[in-house]
Amino acid sequence: MRKISKAEINDIALGASLLGAGGGGDPYIGRLIALDAIEECGPVTLLSPDEVPDDAFIVPIAMMGTPTVLCEKAINGGEYKALAEMVESYFKKKIFAFMPIEAGGVNSMLPFAAAARLGLPLVDCDGMGRAFPELQMVTFTIGGMSATPMALTDEKGNSCIFNTITNKWTEELARAVTMACGGSVSVSLYTMTGAQMKKYAVRDIVTRSERLGKALRLIKEAGQEDTEAKFLEITEGFKLFKGKIVDVKREVRGAFNFGTVVLEGIAECKGRSAYVEFQNENLSAVVDGKIVATVPDLICLVDSGTYTPVPTDALKYGKRVLVVGLKCFERWRTDEGLKLVGPRYFGIETDYIPIEERCKA
Amino acid sequence: MRKISKAEINDIALGASLLGAGGGGDPYIGRLIALDAIEECGPVTLLSPDEVPDDAFIVPIAMMGTPTVLCEKAINGGEYKALAEMVESYFKKKIFAFMPIEAGGVNSMLPFAAAARLGLPLVDCDGMGRAFPELQMVTFTIGGMSATPMALTDEKGNSCIFNTITNKWTEELARAVTMACGGSVSVSLYTMTGAQMKKYAVRDIVTRSERLGKALRLIKEAGQEDTEAKFLEITEGFKLFKGKIVDVKREVRGAFNFGTVVLEGIAECKGRSAYVEFQNENLSAVVDGKIVATVPDLICLVDSGTYTPVPTDALKYGKRVLVVGLKCFERWRTDEGLKLVGPRYFGIETDYIPIEERCKA
Repeated sequence: MRKISKAEINDIALGASLLGAGGGGDPYIGRLIALDAIEECGPVTLLSPDEVPDDAFIVPIAMMGTPTVLCEKAINGGEYKALAEMVESYFKKKIFAFMPIEAGGVNSMLPFAAAARLGLPLVDCDGMGRAFPELQMVTFTIGGMSATPMALTDEKGNSCIFNTITNKWTEELARAVTMACGGSVSVSLYTMTGAQMKKYAVRDIVTRSERLGKALRLIKEAGQEDTEAKFLEITEGFKLFKGKIVDVKREVRGAFNFGTVVLEGIAECKGRSAYVEFQNENLSAVVDGKIVATVPDLICLVDSGTYTPVPTDALKYGKRVLVVGLKCFERWRTDEGLKLVGPRYFGIETDYIPIEERCKA
Repeated sequence: MRKISKAEINDIALGASLLGAGGGGDPYIGRLIALDAIEECGPVTLLSPDEVPDDAFIVPIAMMGTPTVLCEKAINGGEYKALAEMVESYFKKKIFAFMPIEAGGVNSMLPFAAAARLGLPLVDCDGMGRAFPELQMVTFTIGGMSATPMALTDEKGNSCIFNTITNKWTEELARAVTMACGGSVSVSLYTMTGAQMKKYAVRDIVTRSERLGKALRLIKEAGQEDTEAKFLEITEGFKLFKGKIVDVKREVRGAFNFGTVVLEGIAECKGRSAYVEFQNENLSAVVDGKIVATVPDLICLVDSGTYTPVPTDALKYGKRVLVVGLKCFERWRTDEGLKLVGPRYFGIETDYIPIEERCKA
């Protein structure tokens, strides 16, 4: 158990946006929402999973929709209280703690705002260890858990409770309501017991985000030479490419941002080319016509000078980036995991090969 | 209090489909669902509104979506039990009786199926006295009542409970889920007390449907001459036009069937022309360039030989029809009523003039 105050929030947001793998939203807006809530209501108690009783009622909190919409259609701050009341009244149980459902700039932060405002602790875990575009893509689905009953509320005060036959149906119905509400809503889903959380969640993700964020900040602050090796060391990342963005193709389809970013090699990659395909998050990286990484491993683009993560909605012509691959949570590499989030689910015609093997070859 | 068995159902379905004013679905499928439930579970007790205690919990039942979809994507019959359980558990109250929300071939019938299957009575009233395309278009909205908490379930077992800030928002969110579920779902909304029902509902609509249906059947069975005068007498209808359908323009937009049916005069209307615009239901009738009827009055097209109502989704080139106007429920003619369902709401640039005045001129 430890207290998270404003100083830690900055590092957590930065590290979480790297783990967002191109998605999960810009940390700027997410951080502001968390900082504002902590400023007003005080620090948040972060519990390690093992500090949670097995029968505790644990409630994940997230934003659903397009993070870019959140910049213009803000939350009103009352959503978390509304969600908590809906969930407690529906389940007739008191919430013991909140938890995040995914990493990324926005969804790592909103649970802090909820915890601060409701005076509840937050558990140091999530359901992805990264960000993914669809809500059934969590380790809890592998554990046979249901996303529903799921609570949804918008900033105007409209709300729903869903009960669905599969987590894919939850995605369909909740996505439809999210769009009808203007593209961004607050949700609570995969409510669970402490025992389920301990068995299936990705542990210590907040602490990992903070450690990564702090290291990124220190590299940037130190401004030394040869920082790339340092960056790869602290992220345990595989360097996939270094290049300049020469084209970004985007298409909005079914409330997702699909697209491809095309890179022209710079420095030691000069004369070579690469592209990265994305659906909110980066899905695959191809260098000189050869696949070098795919989901569920994390493909992250960072500014080649500052190592600041570049989310897919901030990709711009001329930006110089380092493409780095990180190993995903081990459970994603099982058959059940790959069925949910493997390359073929996203229409990429290749088997999954772990990034460390692809990079060895 | 009286019992409704299979014989009455046929007449009620026929009469209700006339009151559907072109919408509310084909009575064929609605009737089959009701007949099947009564065959299996026995007759339904129909209560007159005054037989309901003021504090009784009254639950409307309806289908939401496109009635044409219902022909291919059938109900499974378990929807009513699911809805009843959701509503009773959410409100922590026992349902006293069901009621229909609108007339029309389908939504007049499904509440009978629900009542038969759950062994509950049905109240002889609804919220429109006709059919309308959007769910906020009920007399209960005039009474300041909320459509929510609203329960929705599909035939697969997915379900939602909505709570919204306005009845227009209920329409937006529930419509989005309806589309995501495949275009047709079962719903329960505007749950109310007996006192509210008695104050705002359109009374005796089932009995009126039955009387109309029986009269239509007798006209058809008798096969006499000069039945048109008889038809107009029993429906208290205003004859607007008699013609052959020469064109049907259709457009599906936002889960509604929009369109125009163009008529060329026959018999005493020979040499004249007319058209009727619709959004699921018929909205306005124009004869020789002059508006002769608009919502909220009922504009009904019936087969000119058999007086069988022709819903908008059954309009076909060459069909000979009589266009008849019926007075709407008086509360629709108030300022509040016209704001909800008057011609301008539907984009028709005219003030509402009651049909009896338009036809006098």
